[in-house]
Amino acid sequence: MTYCVGVKLDEGLIFASDSRTHAGVDNFASFSKLSLFEQAGDRVIILLSSGSLAGTQAVISMLRQNETQPEIASLRNAKSMFDAALLVSDAMRLVDKRDAQYLSKNDGGFQSSFILGGQIKGEASRLFRLYSEGNFIEAGDQTPFFQTGETKYGKPIIDWAITRSTNLNDATKCVLVSFDSTMNSNLSVGMPIDLICYKSDSLEVTMRRRFDSGDPYFDALSTDWNAGIRDVFSRLTNLEW
Amino acid sequence: MTYCVGVKLDEGLIFASDSRTHAGVDNFASFSKLSLFEQAGDRVIILLSSGSLAGTQAVISMLRQNETQPEIASLRNAKSMFDAALLVSDAMRLVDKRDAQYLSKNDGGFQSSFILGGQIKGEASRLFRLYSEGNFIEAGDQTPFFQTGETKYGKPIIDWAITRSTNLNDATKCVLVSFDSTMNSNLSVGMPIDLICYKSDSLEVTMRRRFDSGDPYFDALSTDWNAGIRDVFSRLTNLEW
Repeated sequence: MTYCVGVKLDEGLIFASDSRTHAGVDNFASFSKLSLFEQAGDRVIILLSSGSLAGTQAVISMLRQNETQPEIASLRNAKSMFDAALLVSDAMRLVDKRDAQYLSKNDGGFQSSFILGGQIKGEASRLFRLYSEGNFIEAGDQTPFFQTGETKYGKPIIDWAITRSTNLNDATKCVLVSFDSTMNSNLSVGMPIDLICYKSDSLEVTMRRRFDSGDPYFDALSTDWNAGIRDVFSRLTNLEW
Repeated sequence: MTYCVGVKLDEGLIFASDSRTHAGVDNFASFSKLSLFEQAGDRVIILLSSGSLAGTQAVISMLRQNETQPEIASLRNAKSMFDAALLVSDAMRLVDKRDAQYLSKNDGGFQSSFILGGQIKGEASRLFRLYSEGNFIEAGDQTPFFQTGETKYGKPIIDWAITRSTNLNDATKCVLVSFDSTMNSNLSVGMPIDLICYKSDSLEVTMRRRFDSGDPYFDALSTDWNAGIRDVFSRLTNLEW
């Protein structure tokens, strides 16, 4: 399993992913699911991947290889984030075309999905969620975040605490707590967590962190959050019977 | 879908269930999923039911009918909560025996499960979770709660805030917030919510409430909780990059 979150705020974007891949509890490994395509001053594009690792790696390799060939359309020269989403979608469908007939029927074709976001000079920050079929949706005013993978455990905390106007600092802490709750409940979601916060119109990534198991900030956040909400519960009005 | 929670604390037990049953988004109804079997001064037994309504109603009707016949084993004369769990299990297997061959293969037999708890004079409060096969487990020191139905959205908040030593008031507020988050994320879990708090050794139910849509306490709790955790996030240490 996987857990990825992309958040779109007035102040900017947040991307976070776990790193666990597995094929059974006795066969797991650690791979980053966050890919950054950056040309400082011109564009910042971030891709979070969920699903079959063979599929997502093929898509990302294809996107990176295309960037080295200036004459073809790539994330390096896409004119808009919408065009970038189309390029990711095209790569997904090419990988599916190549592999689908060799995969078991149960797998049912390309079993991966992506969260794509960022900013290309000339337009605002944008956030997309691509389904395994290659079609996609864009975050609007009412939906400030997308999740993929093991989404349920970590959803309520984001619903409660994040709106478009939440600041990057508070939303970042909320996203990390959302990962903490998911990892506590599903062993197939695991550290390290990759995190990027992107400040709108900066057109470069200055806030990037990887949290490994035992990270002092992450552990303190988890402890302080626990104490904080127990305090909230004790201060909420008791039920009268 | 359904959402039921049973919690075992040092101070007592908490039981809560939603009331929505459905067979598609255009075919839903409201049925209580909480059944109380009480003889004040001698025993308090509570059953929370999830799954096929035909199956759970048959089990409960059988248990209630048996109570009217003093010569046979029933929840009225069970000597322990373990014996009570065996009686619920027996009823489940009788219903399964009667109905299974008439249900579609996809349904795969008896598709219901229960949370059972309470206290019978002479022993401590106990809490059980019965699987659809009729076998069951009992809550121990490390596992102070059981959930059935749509469990994921509401689990982290209980994990964070409830241990065996949490007081009944705070744990009750936490269980209600757990329902609030589940109903916000899954339309097939819905009001009214039935709630019983049982104080250990009281051997009677004095704390019972039903929360309908628009309940002023429930709505205020939800609003105050939201404000409370946003405040916690703003006070947690910001990440240094």
